[in-house]
Amino acid sequence: MWKSWKHITKLDPDRKNSEELVKAVAESGTDAVMVSGTQNVTAEKVKKLLSMLKKYNVPTVVEPSDPSNVVYDADYLFVPTVLNSLDGEWITGKHAKWVFMNYKDKNFEDLFNRVVFEGYIVLNPNSAVAKVTRSLQMDAKMAASYAFIGERMMKLPIIYIEYSGTYGDPEVVKEVKSVLNSSRLFYGGGIDSREKAIEMLKYADTIIVGNVIYEKGLNAYLSTVP
Amino acid sequence: MWKSWKHITKLDPDRKNSEELVKAVAESGTDAVMVSGTQNVTAEKVKKLLSMLKKYNVPTVVEPSDPSNVVYDADYLFVPTVLNSLDGEWITGKHAKWVFMNYKDKNFEDLFNRVVFEGYIVLNPNSAVAKVTRSLQMDAKMAASYAFIGERMMKLPIIYIEYSGTYGDPEVVKEVKSVLNSSRLFYGGGIDSREKAIEMLKYADTIIVGNVIYEKGLNAYLSTVP
Repeated sequence: MWKSWKHITKLDPDRKNSEELVKAVAESGTDAVMVSGTQNVTAEKVKKLLSMLKKYNVPTVVEPSDPSNVVYDADYLFVPTVLNSLDGEWITGKHAKWVFMNYKDKNFEDLFNRVVFEGYIVLNPNSAVAKVTRSLQMDAKMAASYAFIGERMMKLPIIYIEYSGTYGDPEVVKEVKSVLNSSRLFYGGGIDSREKAIEMLKYADTIIVGNVIYEKGLNAYLSTVP
Repeated sequence: MWKSWKHITKLDPDRKNSEELVKAVAESGTDAVMVSGTQNVTAEKVKKLLSMLKKYNVPTVVEPSDPSNVVYDADYLFVPTVLNSLDGEWITGKHAKWVFMNYKDKNFEDLFNRVVFEGYIVLNPNSAVAKVTRSLQMDAKMAASYAFIGERMMKLPIIYIEYSGTYGDPEVVKEVKSVLNSSRLFYGGGIDSREKAIEMLKYADTIIVGNVIYEKGLNAYLSTVP
């Protein structure tokens, strides 16, 4: 079902998420709400936000940033692997640790079949996520080459161009899209208007919108929903 | 066809490979000959060895160690990705560079469909390959956790336990085998007798034999062919 999503709203469990905000998002027409953050994320905060979302019909996704804070209460678990990290830890290492922590647990292995892996390509060098993951910076063709490896070598169902906090280059997204056969292309970063949403949706299959809610308010956010 | 192979012979293009040696290997009953080496490998040396193998019926594989020395003249191209490397370069980086070097070349993209990817887990800390790739050392369960990620997250058709130059721990191979559903399990390292070949084939689907030819001679090598 997630393959038909065009617009995902990313809520940060470490921000202030009021009842009104959660209701407005859940009823906005967005295809899903992803609970995800990189800093100060605890399982408790994630669970609290998920419980607030429960009364609405919108599908929920948890996107963990570390094996220590995985929460299994959402409809989907989207697990990132950072294709352009200089550190193996972010590509396979944390994932292997996660398996090790749940070694031969039958429930975990069953769950694993419902996990969706995302091949991140992190492109804003000033973002916290680029610094933490030591992501290599590159031009459009190199980004597309990483995407190709994510799809053809790793068979990842999602390639995710992440400009975290800033609006990216549509030409990069276009170039990446041009090499993909089967993976869905996600784009995230700096979408705070209908124009930007429409521009990125020319190339990306799915846009992820988040910060605009906290930074520009609900009206700006609502304008990004197709 | 490669999925039925039980015994692969790895020849190093940087070693002395006489006509007699090549003939004996090609007619030994081994299932395939893999041309592979980590040091001083050039495309020229690889091509020379492949041309010597051409007159025999044995299937050939090239296993490149770097995008700069890929040779496309063999039946198969087995491309390693080092799951337990600390450096992203060995997991996705060199691969993306390889795609970049052949960007949107139609022949390359067609070829890519015939490439078989191997998820290496490098376990002998004293080996050149472990040092170059800065491979993390670990116990059997952690190795199996990496194998699980190689199969379930990356959908790799081959998981390859590499003890390069030394005979490994059969319990590690057994543990790794116990978590795999669909990937073929390759084992390489230190097989220089029929006993060791039989022991590792209890758990591994395929053994890779190589150094024994150069270090103990043809008779020791021939004893490893099932």
